[in-house]
Amino acid sequence: MARSGRRPGRTGTRDRILVSARAAFGESGFEGATVRGIARAAGVDPALVHHYFGSKEQLFVASIELPFDPQHLAALLVRGGLDGLGERMMRFAVSIWGQPRSLQVLLGIARSATSDPRAAEALRGILESSLLPAIRELGVDQPELRASLIWSQVVGLVFGRFVVGVTPLTAAAPEQLVAAVAPILQLTLTAPMP
Amino acid sequence: MARSGRRPGRTGTRDRILVSARAAFGESGFEGATVRGIARAAGVDPALVHHYFGSKEQLFVASIELPFDPQHLAALLVRGGLDGLGERMMRFAVSIWGQPRSLQVLLGIARSATSDPRAAEALRGILESSLLPAIRELGVDQPELRASLIWSQVVGLVFGRFVVGVTPLTAAAPEQLVAAVAPILQLTLTAPMP
Repeated sequence: MARSGRRPGRTGTRDRILVSARAAFGESGFEGATVRGIARAAGVDPALVHHYFGSKEQLFVASIELPFDPQHLAALLVRGGLDGLGERMMRFAVSIWGQPRSLQVLLGIARSATSDPRAAEALRGILESSLLPAIRELGVDQPELRASLIWSQVVGLVFGRFVVGVTPLTAAAPEQLVAAVAPILQLTLTAPMP
Repeated sequence: MARSGRRPGRTGTRDRILVSARAAFGESGFEGATVRGIARAAGVDPALVHHYFGSKEQLFVASIELPFDPQHLAALLVRGGLDGLGERMMRFAVSIWGQPRSLQVLLGIARSATSDPRAAEALRGILESSLLPAIRELGVDQPELRASLIWSQVVGLVFGRFVVGVTPLTAAAPEQLVAAVAPILQLTLTAPMP
């Protein structure tokens, strides 16, 4: 990905811009973030942002990067089999949103998903590259519907806890949420489906 | 609410503006909708929008109106008792989003909730004025956590089906979704909670 730069510090500058772009999109969403603010936080001239990334839209696309490797997650979920899978899913979700930088990226994607198709695609990617392959590989029937229902439950939790601020969800300790939600996800994996 | 107008047609104009505001916010969210476009759709001058509602923000606040009466929903949920409550909840959700105008209003609120605290408050209102009182009245333990988990599941479904466009959720017939999700909501109402 990194071509040899013509100037020293080229990759460093590009990366600094990406880091502050992720922070800004995470904080304010696509609409709220500004190239000027991102440039300021990165300590560069706004012209440099345009030089490296073109428009704000292109910068956003470059900065969309799930805070985990979807294939790694799929493998992790499959490894332990169907038993306790609901709990492993919740533990993974909680471990990701427990890291401030990962949470910031996730929220940036979630906030922008309502207005930007590429952010929506990144959210769908979690379903299509992680949950669905894992559930398929475990041989569960109706994997598409089950994976989608699990995805929507976790997205709803993130939305309630971090975007809308639903008190019982913001107040719950991660362990309490895992204990409360894991059996619900497990039922979603195992209940008869219409 | 309707004061006696000084001119004939005053209430009619105000209502026309509200109708096209709800449509525009539903279509494009708070950021995307414009006072100019709303005025055009209502067949009035933009100055009239400002005259009746002030800013775009004030217009949005005036137009936020859940497409159902929260107290009516609470009563409806309580009436049948805990048995089959998960199914009644899903049937209600599906009946609301099956009406184009109601769906439009809901999506406007959901899209704006990521950037506007008042839209987020309207979403929380479904929890606080409908789900929570109903679950409390039925004497279930941990009503706050259960109601929040149910709320987040339904919000996640709406998000997946209508905002992000997750295929298995968009493709499922309403009856299939009710059959798939009702037992999951029922478990959320009845499972032991940490």
